[in-house]
Amino acid sequence: MLKSALLLIDVQKGFDSPLWGQRNNPEAESNITALLAKWRKNEAPIIHVKHCSVSPQSPLHPDQPGNAYKDEASPLSGEPEFTKSVNSAFIGTGLEEYLNENGLDSLVIVGLTTDHCVSTSTRMAGNLGFDVTLVSDATATFDRKDASGEHISAEDMHRVNLASLNGEFCIVKTTDEVLKATN
Amino acid sequence: MLKSALLLIDVQKGFDSPLWGQRNNPEAESNITALLAKWRKNEAPIIHVKHCSVSPQSPLHPDQPGNAYKDEASPLSGEPEFTKSVNSAFIGTGLEEYLNENGLDSLVIVGLTTDHCVSTSTRMAGNLGFDVTLVSDATATFDRKDASGEHISAEDMHRVNLASLNGEFCIVKTTDEVLKATN
Repeated sequence: MLKSALLLIDVQKGFDSPLWGQRNNPEAESNITALLAKWRKNEAPIIHVKHCSVSPQSPLHPDQPGNAYKDEASPLSGEPEFTKSVNSAFIGTGLEEYLNENGLDSLVIVGLTTDHCVSTSTRMAGNLGFDVTLVSDATATFDRKDASGEHISAEDMHRVNLASLNGEFCIVKTTDEVLKATN
Repeated sequence: MLKSALLLIDVQKGFDSPLWGQRNNPEAESNITALLAKWRKNEAPIIHVKHCSVSPQSPLHPDQPGNAYKDEASPLSGEPEFTKSVNSAFIGTGLEEYLNENGLDSLVIVGLTTDHCVSTSTRMAGNLGFDVTLVSDATATFDRKDASGEHISAEDMHRVNLASLNGEFCIVKTTDEVLKATN
């Protein structure tokens, strides 16, 4: 696990906006912080991905204060950053080339949101041949509606989406499991 | 809708194997057949994608009989085919270039399975800038287990995965809605 790059996806202030709805897993940020501290202590590779929405009214638009990284997940000097305007961290960024050039074939993915940018980036990472661990309790999502307008809780969105990913695109592990594997 | 390409993903015999588990939506194939008939009648663009698993024991491996297209979704002469070995129809294929070279910027996606190859291809199509309609009742998936080993029904996998896609990567419509829009 020590040679894996920790890939933080969209850990940005804009996700605190009430417009997204009800979120699950309020512990995601503290788990991300714990993983980030461990990676920094081990001097292991860390990569930050920031969403720069092209929609002016989005809290994640570069002109909005919500575009900023959350304080607990802000990059330190020397930690590479990639910006994107779609869900996948691999489209319109140099991320794939960066990983290949630096011999990074293994990723530990955390961030927001489980079923949009995290799922899409995890799928593409797996399909591009990277070995991916997705940290279940270091990601979170929001409640949504199904085609008939019925409410689906954020926790159900999260749980079902992880079930679709596990074993097909990645291995899903908890923060504790990942931290123990890096000792 | 008439200028959209109908993109059929992995409508292959191997998905009839019992190893996948319990499936939802047994009507998917008849809905795909109805859409295919309408597209052929309109001489609208049709594109077939076939999964060629690299795993020798997979029913979708090229040496297995299950690699074949289902009879009702077999390509006619002149209908382009793309083969893939990962979930995304856009990785390791020439699909994106083909669509761009042929001025096809709009897709109607059907096929198997909702949360693996269909979701991944829909996400990537949307992120690459294509205008995507995903046909909810012309796709299907299988039951799966969550991280704690709890069973999730195929219908719940299907419904929640469509809720994650709708409005973010594509518009989800029914076969009837699509057929009416092509009249």
